[in-house]
Amino acid sequence: MEPTPIVTLTTDFGTADGYVGTMKGVILGVVPGAQLVDISHAIGPQDVRQAAYVLYTAYPFFPPHAVHLVVVDPGVGSSRRPVALRTPSGTFVGPDNGVFSYVMAREPVEALVELADLRYRLSQVSHTFHGRDIFAPAAAHLASGVPIGALGPRVSDPVAFSPPRLEISPVGVVGEVLHADHFGNVITSIGLLTWSDDELLLEPAFGGVGGGERVHFRAGGAVVVAAGREIAGVHRTYAEVATGETLALVGSEGHLEVAVREGSAAHSLGLRPGDEVVLRLR
Amino acid sequence: MEPTPIVTLTTDFGTADGYVGTMKGVILGVVPGAQLVDISHAIGPQDVRQAAYVLYTAYPFFPPHAVHLVVVDPGVGSSRRPVALRTPSGTFVGPDNGVFSYVMAREPVEALVELADLRYRLSQVSHTFHGRDIFAPAAAHLASGVPIGALGPRVSDPVAFSPPRLEISPVGVVGEVLHADHFGNVITSIGLLTWSDDELLLEPAFGGVGGGERVHFRAGGAVVVAAGREIAGVHRTYAEVATGETLALVGSEGHLEVAVREGSAAHSLGLRPGDEVVLRLR
Amino acid sequence: MEPTPIVTLTTDFGTADGYVGTMKGVILGVVPGAQLVDISHAIGPQDVRQAAYVLYTAYPFFPPHAVHLVVVDPGVGSSRRPVALRTPSGTFVGPDNGVFSYVMAREPVEALVELADLRYRLSQVSHTFHGRDIFAPAAAHLASGVPIGALGPRVSDPVAFSPPRLEISPVGVVGEVLHADHFGNVITSIGLLTWSDDELLLEPAFGGVGGGERVHFRAGGAVVVAAGREIAGVHRTYAEVATGETLALVGSEGHLEVAVREGSAAHSLGLRPGDEVVLRLR
Repeated sequence: MEPTPIVTLTTDFGTADGYVGTMKGVILGVVPGAQLVDISHAIGPQDVRQAAYVLYTAYPFFPPHAVHLVVVDPGVGSSRRPVALRTPSGTFVGPDNGVFSYVMAREPVEALVELADLRYRLSQVSHTFHGRDIFAPAAAHLASGVPIGALGPRVSDPVAFSPPRLEISPVGVVGEVLHADHFGNVITSIGLLTWSDDELLLEPAFGGVGGGERVHFRAGGAVVVAAGREIAGVHRTYAEVATGETLALVGSEGHLEVAVREGSAAHSLGLRPGDEVVLRLR
Repeated sequence: MEPTPIVTLTTDFGTADGYVGTMKGVILGVVPGAQLVDISHAIGPQDVRQAAYVLYTAYPFFPPHAVHLVVVDPGVGSSRRPVALRTPSGTFVGPDNGVFSYVMAREPVEALVELADLRYRLSQVSHTFHGRDIFAPAAAHLASGVPIGALGPRVSDPVAFSPPRLEISPVGVVGEVLHADHFGNVITSIGLLTWSDDELLLEPAFGGVGGGERVHFRAGGAVVVAAGREIAGVHRTYAEVATGETLALVGSEGHLEVAVREGSAAHSLGLRPGDEVVLRLR
Repeated sequence: MEPTPIVTLTTDFGTADGYVGTMKGVILGVVPGAQLVDISHAIGPQDVRQAAYVLYTAYPFFPPHAVHLVVVDPGVGSSRRPVALRTPSGTFVGPDNGVFSYVMAREPVEALVELADLRYRLSQVSHTFHGRDIFAPAAAHLASGVPIGALGPRVSDPVAFSPPRLEISPVGVVGEVLHADHFGNVITSIGLLTWSDDELLLEPAFGGVGGGERVHFRAGGAVVVAAGREIAGVHRTYAEVATGETLALVGSEGHLEVAVREGSAAHSLGLRPGDEVVLRLR
């Protein structure tokens, strides 16, 4: 028995206008029983890097037959290519603008094609809503079992942006803020971190695209410097400090995170994506 | 094999309170395997015209067996009738307050009935939440295959509001702002526009309810006047102008749109629904 | 034939970050055909009481085989227990922090267990995202038919917070604001109210946890005092007063509600959760 098709959606469309619903209508016209799952529609307008990050945190937790549709597309109507990407951990559909950079850094690319075949688009394609007219139909056809090679020719030179800053040395690590979440927790590029008793092992995230070496260190002895503040120690969980206190911890994705227990570190420290964060090891 | 039932939801409920989830629970109690698709829950409180517009953009992209549930209902508890409407492009359930005006202008009405039969309501009907107690059960029963005629008597005098302003002459067109979307793109009543090389054909939208004649014109020679600004030419896509520049273009629904590339025209020009927009043709 | 599994989700995660989508990916990995229904992801950060209230309004409208997953979890990473609760009206999964207080006040508890068995968690459990690693897998396994007793040992001393204020006497009732909804309607602890002609019957909500007696009164003769204002009479529906007027009415859950027709009582009266509301009966 075939598994139920799954299509996830990540966009900067918001949820007020019916654009997302419209894409779902298109998908259900192609693959009627599909599971449709929203990842986020609150990506900042045209913020391709944020979309790449949010996708990076979510896709590994879906079954590998899921198709992940991403429409954050400042270049709609220009010559940027629409693409589909197959990896062992999932299939991805969206514009070739770097939004799959983190996926491609972590996963082997089994196939990468341009969405060129007109049979897998709506019969009329607008100049401004390729999410509806090109990407949603392609995702739906892929979810229904159309082989990825049928959608168009192979792409060998995908757009990828440079990985986030991550400079690892035995005495310290320099990274940057990747994302501030709904709670105001500030997630950094310093990862992946894994616990071994009271020690942490840091291995470059994003499949090694960050470069640098692995390093072991004692969590309690480390100091995180962010927004001019020194924060002592790296914790396991919010509950290890008092309510309102600022702490550094290993977040749920294995990245170093700066947080305020039951508060917002993004607000109280004023940290924003791109800001430098340093982890001093001794 | 029957297609999977689809029920879409468009409300002004927001998504914070559990009202939408409650309606979905009611629907799943009637038609367990239904596909539930959110169109929008961010319609302005009691803004029936905005709901009508958002529905207008979304429903044509769903399979025709879909049931579109709309609950924007300033008259809940008054004598306004709850209705169901069947057209070749979909079935619609909601209050008889004009919210289906644009659908009825574009689609032939196959059936229009009042939701009077108590078998298709919850056993207890509140005075303030007909979305849960009357509309959701009716939509679910229709999606499960109950004939529309079983729900109640025929309605021959539905409430419909006047179509948006659209005055077409060979020298120019006067319309109004319909909607500002999440990106700040401002969509006008001037449509439907279709391209033929460098020319545009304008045919009255909303099934002709706007009245007026068809007119052909050269896109590059037209001038759009909005918020006291003159904008030269009508474009195909945002990417034809520089970032931050204001442009007029044909949006994804075939309506004239005023936009700022990677910016918000609604914000920078201060345009709001109802504001006049003129398209000068020569 | 088994009914389609249903899992509802109520969190304080917001919908911007992909956390909710990630949990859904985990659920679909366990129970592929499940119906996933969002109740709310806009619970105030760590606001367990608000989550308890929103859940209370929604769960009775779902089929009893639904599993209601609630993740509002200020104590994540501490020693608070993860639990599952079975009642005749539904199954509930979340932290043992009082979030199920109103459910347990209204429903007989058939089973209450700690989520201890490692087979029903993800293989790696983070210290900060138990929604993904513990609660979502447990909800999915329960929805797929795993007996609740398999998940862990019985819990006999669940955390429950005190019921909202509700002091009933023959001359009046003292309650408090429970929630202000998206429209600005202010819902109070004064319920459940049921109509009998022009009279109302008040019976303590929350399964009697509010204590006190039943009382009958004439709706038109009652006076509601809130935010220093006296509001005459209790109405059936918004449409009974003029647009912009303040009124008291029986809301869709059977609780006394203070509202402004087509306006926001929360805004105009400045009412907030916990504020005192008095219903004078004579």
